[in-house]
This record gives sequence, structure tokens and C-alpha cells, in this order.
Amino acid sequence: MIETIRISVDAMGGDNGPRVALHGAMLALKEHSDASFVFHGPTATLTPLLDEFPDLKPVSIIRDCDVVIAMDEKPSQALRKGKGTSSMWNALQSVKDDEADVAVSGGNTGALMAMATFCLRPIEGISRPAIAAIWPTMRSNIVVLDVGATIGGDAQQLVDFSILGTALARALFARDKPSVGLLNIGTEEVKGLDSIKDAGKILAAASGSGFTYHGFVEGDDLGKGTVDVIVTEGFTGNIALKTAEGTARQVGAYLRNALSANLMSKLGALLASSALSALRQRMDPRTVNGGVFLGLNGIVIKSHGGTDEIGYKSAVNLAYEMARSRLIDKIGEGMRQFPISAVTGNTSHQTEDKPA
Amino acid sequence: MIETIRISVDAMGGDNGPRVALHGAMLALKEHSDASFVFHGPTATLTPLLDEFPDLKPVSIIRDCDVVIAMDEKPSQALRKGKGTSSMWNALQSVKDDEADVAVSGGNTGALMAMATFCLRPIEGISRPAIAAIWPTMRSNIVVLDVGATIGGDAQQLVDFSILGTALARALFARDKPSVGLLNIGTEEVKGLDSIKDAGKILAAASGSGFTYHGFVEGDDLGKGTVDVIVTEGFTGNIALKTAEGTARQVGAYLRNALSANLMSKLGALLASSALSALRQRMDPRTVNGGVFLGLNGIVIKSHGGTDEIGYKSAVNLAYEMARSRLIDKIGEGMRQFPISAVTGNTSHQTEDKPA
Repeated sequence: MIETIRISVDAMGGDNGPRVALHGAMLALKEHSDASFVFHGPTATLTPLLDEFPDLKPVSIIRDCDVVIAMDEKPSQALRKGKGTSSMWNALQSVKDDEADVAVSGGNTGALMAMATFCLRPIEGISRPAIAAIWPTMRSNIVVLDVGATIGGDAQQLVDFSILGTALARALFARDKPSVGLLNIGTEEVKGLDSIKDAGKILAAASGSGFTYHGFVEGDDLGKGTVDVIVTEGFTGNIALKTAEGTARQVGAYLRNALSANLMSKLGALLASSALSALRQRMDPRTVNGGVFLGLNGIVIKSHGGTDEIGYKSAVNLAYEMARSRLIDKIGEGMRQFPISAVTGNTSHQTEDKPA
Repeated sequence: MIETIRISVDAMGGDNGPRVALHGAMLALKEHSDASFVFHGPTATLTPLLDEFPDLKPVSIIRDCDVVIAMDEKPSQALRKGKGTSSMWNALQSVKDDEADVAVSGGNTGALMAMATFCLRPIEGISRPAIAAIWPTMRSNIVVLDVGATIGGDAQQLVDFSILGTALARALFARDKPSVGLLNIGTEEVKGLDSIKDAGKILAAASGSGFTYHGFVEGDDLGKGTVDVIVTEGFTGNIALKTAEGTARQVGAYLRNALSANLMSKLGALLASSALSALRQRMDPRTVNGGVFLGLNGIVIKSHGGTDEIGYKSAVNLAYEMARSRLIDKIGEGMRQFPISAVTGNTSHQTEDKPA
């Protein structure tokens, strides 16, 4: 059992109930036979559900708890109510206690981030955690962060995010020195916020040490896949993520309208149906479901709350890959590789907040 | 000639030379026979070009000038070099001198905004100008601002943008009380930046006076068309705009790939070709070309620099509509309608910067 990847699941998080989580885990197990699971939630609810998935049962344990964090609960409320008692908290505690290698939850993002930060604590030297999205592009998938953990951010924070995102890209894409771009408006050096300009200078000086600094990128570089990692603060990143999702749905709706416009187009769609279904699959948001919480002493994957078992499977698969590729170790390596000399001001990697 | 809509054109702005501007104007004239034009640029260049468009010639005059602002010039450089001498500046000066009702330029955005602000001056009570985009959605076009004029912004600025955007929506869509949403992450009241929360309170108190305040919206509401006007500060707005453009191109590329995947899909695409070409037209960025500069004492339309005559025509048509619908008057009405009592703090509409 030593080589098993142990996945802790907040079975009660998400809009669609615990069956989705268990079903998703079962589907992921089919692809990764060396996965095992710890499901957190009421035994009375989970036991009969687990009986429905006979393949899953032998590699799973249930940890009983009664408290469920609601999707609309405020982070502070959730912490008060759910610390040590809720399926969400306990899923994280499993990682902290080394009962699991990674945690998955489809629960409310704000509460999960608050609990994860409180339970697992930020990595020494990283001031704020981030949520990274795996973003499909015309070239290949890329990493985009932060997509909503932290509003605003100074230069050092953007540099931290670059190190975290680079480690994730290395774990995901097996690329030696992922390219990093800072999201900005206009690619000319003169434009943008001071924090971004300063971060650009620090990254330019450190370029080569585990990553390649590309420079500024713009919103349309997200879809192009210009670089492997795009870094921004969480407000802008979240708006960009949802704008892209919305635009993809919008164009999809346009296409459906167009193809049902007349008899000829309907016939055409019928002939092209295999190609169009491949396209539908490519644009299916469930295939890249899962935000990665970065910067904490443990890996946490946030599944979309409204997803089904297919989407949940993607989140579990992502969790598996992150644990298998030893993401946390890669982040540590990235931080050690980052040259202190590149940091013009104080570097939080060495000193901040913690006694030596 | 009194009823003519007089359009001042920076013929030298844009990547593709003055012919695009003149050709675009000619195409717009076909749709609006009561338009007339003032073209700014070197007479030696423009006269032979104008001869190529015999319909355009009788309703056009050329104002000679030699200086051209380059696409990569910094705003401060552009101002120093081009004030009173360049085609860009002179196109704006025509509006200021009431020789024209509206100005159009395909030149560099930063320089144009700096010159427009300097030449036309902000409307009394509006602290910063904004660039509004006409955004195609699943429902209908909407107004999104600011998409890049101003980085950052306090609550009052977001309220100003709401008034400006509402006036534009009223001019464009003939809607009595356009709905307004503030772009935020998460629709719950608790989330987001203080500036957005404070602006939300002011707008909620003023809702009904010329607009309806909808509340917070998220990135995916851009494509849905949830509200008529979406307000944000310029950094986020610019990222959202370019992200949406990039995503639309990305999905378009996916679709082309899918339809050329095999013989059946190619045949299908052939049968559906009229529907697909309607789709292509619907997604053509040239059909909604033109950013509207708002908050200045004069209307300025920024055409995309890299567009062709079809795109330029759209920008000229937009300029025509803005002048015809008396946008500046509508902004004044909106400001007068806005209840002072809604503004909790100081209102810049009454006092800021100017002696009474």
C-alpha cells in the first residue's frame, strides 16, 4: 500500500450531493488503479452510497462527521462552525495528518480557501496562497493564477505566484523551464501597474533559474497559449476566467443557432456530427475541472461545485497527478532555485513572518 | 447643410494607411447620405486618394498637416510633438472648434486619449474619461466600460462611469432606463473590492433615476448580456475585452479544425456553408469596431488600428450614430438626473476641480 496515492475527499461539498463525489472517484480509480480514498461525511449517508460502487469500496475508508458547509456560507462563519467538525475541514486535516496526499472538495471556494489556509498554513516564504486554473489554449494547456484567492497583490506576491505557477507547470507538463508572462494591458514596458512593472524587473533578473521570463502578456494571450504560466492577481484572474468561460458558451450558442438555421445546415451538421462532437468534447468545461490551491503545505483541489461525476473525475485525476508528481517538493525546489540577488527589495522567501 | 452630421477623421491614424480611412468613410456615406467629412493629413497624400472616391469628394474637405503620430509613440511624446500640428490633434480640434460633431481615429489609443483629454477636457463633474466598448452578447449588444482609459478607480469614478455608460446605452439602444451592473468576483454582497461595494451602495440608492441598478455581475455575464451596461475600472475591463476576443478566436480555430477533420465534416461544412458564413459575420470583430471615449466635451471614436475599410466603416457609422443621437446632451441629462442624495460622500458632480 505504500505506493498508493491517497486522496481525501470532502464528499459533502458541491451542489449535487455526495453521489457525484463517489461516482467521480470511482471513474478516476478506473484510470489510476493505485489510488485510494478517504471520504469525509456522515457514515449513514456514505456507507450505502459506497455499496453502490463495489470497485471503489475496497480502497476507500469513510471518516464520519455531521457538519456540512453550505455553498453560500461566509468563510468566517464556515471556519467557526466547521473547524474540526465538518467534512470540508476534515478532508484537509487528513492531508495535514499525512493520512492522505491530497484533498479534493467541490464545496464553496471562499470557505475552502479559508479553511485550507488555516489548517495547512502557507508555505514558509509565501505570503498568500493562490488558486491556479489549468487553461486550455490553441497550443496546449497552460497554468493561470491567481484566479480568485487573493484580491490585489504587490510585486513580491506576483513573484511568489510565478514560482508557484512554474512548479505546477513543471509537474503538469514535464517542461524543464516553463515560460512565464505577467498579465498586463499593452505589452510596452511603460504601461500597467507599478506592482506588475516591479515584478517584471524581478522576474527578468531571475529568468533562467527554473523558468524563462517572457515579459508582459495581454488578455488575448490566454487563448493563444503564448506562455506556459500567466500570472495576475486574483480579481483580474477571476474576471478573465469567467469571461473566457462565458465567451466560449456564447460562441457555442451562436454555433448551435447557425447549424439549426435551415435544412441544409442541419444536414451539414449531421454529416459533420463526429467532428462536432469532438469539438464539443474539446470545449467541455468538465474535462479541465479543478482549481489547484497553491502556496500551502499540502495540495488541495477545488472541483466546480455544480459539476457531475465526469467533472468530478477530472478533479480527482488532477489531484492524483499533483500528488504523484510531488507538487509540494517541486515548489520547494523552485523557491530554492530562485536567486535572492534578483529580488531588489526584501525577499519574503527568506524572512517574512517566521522566526529563522 | 445644417442637418449634416460632420465627421472629423484622423486620416493618418492606424496601421494600414489613409486609404482605409477614406474608403471606410465612403462606405459609411452609402449608409448615411447626410454625413460629411473633414479629413486631417497631408494634402499631397489625401487629395489623390480622395479623387479615387468620387461620391465622397463633394462632402469632404481636407485640412492639411504634416505630423503623424506613430502607433508606438508614448502619450507624453505624442502630446509634445503633435499638439496643434498632427492629424490626430487636429481631428480633435475640429470637434472643439465646432467644425465637426465627432472625431474618429485609428491611431494609438494612449496618445489619442491623452490628446483628447487635453484638447476637449473632461466634462465638469467627471474626474476621468473612460473608453466604452459595444459588446456583442447572447441577448443583444451591451455597453462595457472602462476598457482601458484609466487604471484603477474609486467608488465615485465607478459611479461616473455608470452615468456615462447609461447615457451611451440610451443613445445606442433607445432604452429608457438601461440596467447597470458592477463587474465583481462573486455576486454575494460580501465579496470584492471596497470601491466596488461603495459604488454599489451609491447606485442602489440612485436606482430608478434614468437607470436601473442590477447589482454585481461576474465575468460570464459579459457574454450573457445580463445587463445593458457593465462597469469596471480600465485594467480589468481591458483584460476582459482582450480575453473575450482571444477566446472567440480560439473557439473559431477549434471549429475550423473540427470541420476540416475528415471528408464527412468537410462535406457537412459545405452544406452548412451559408449558416457558417452568417456565423462568421456574427463573430467578425469588424462589425462592432469602435471604442467610444466618454466623459469629454466632445465625442471621439477610436477605431481598431489594424482594421480594414469594413471595420473603419463600422467606426464611422458608430461616430455618426453617437453624433445623431446627441450623446453629449444625454450625458448631461444623466448627470442632472442623478440624485445628489444618493451620494454618501462628496459628489464630484457638483464641486470637483472647477470654480463654481
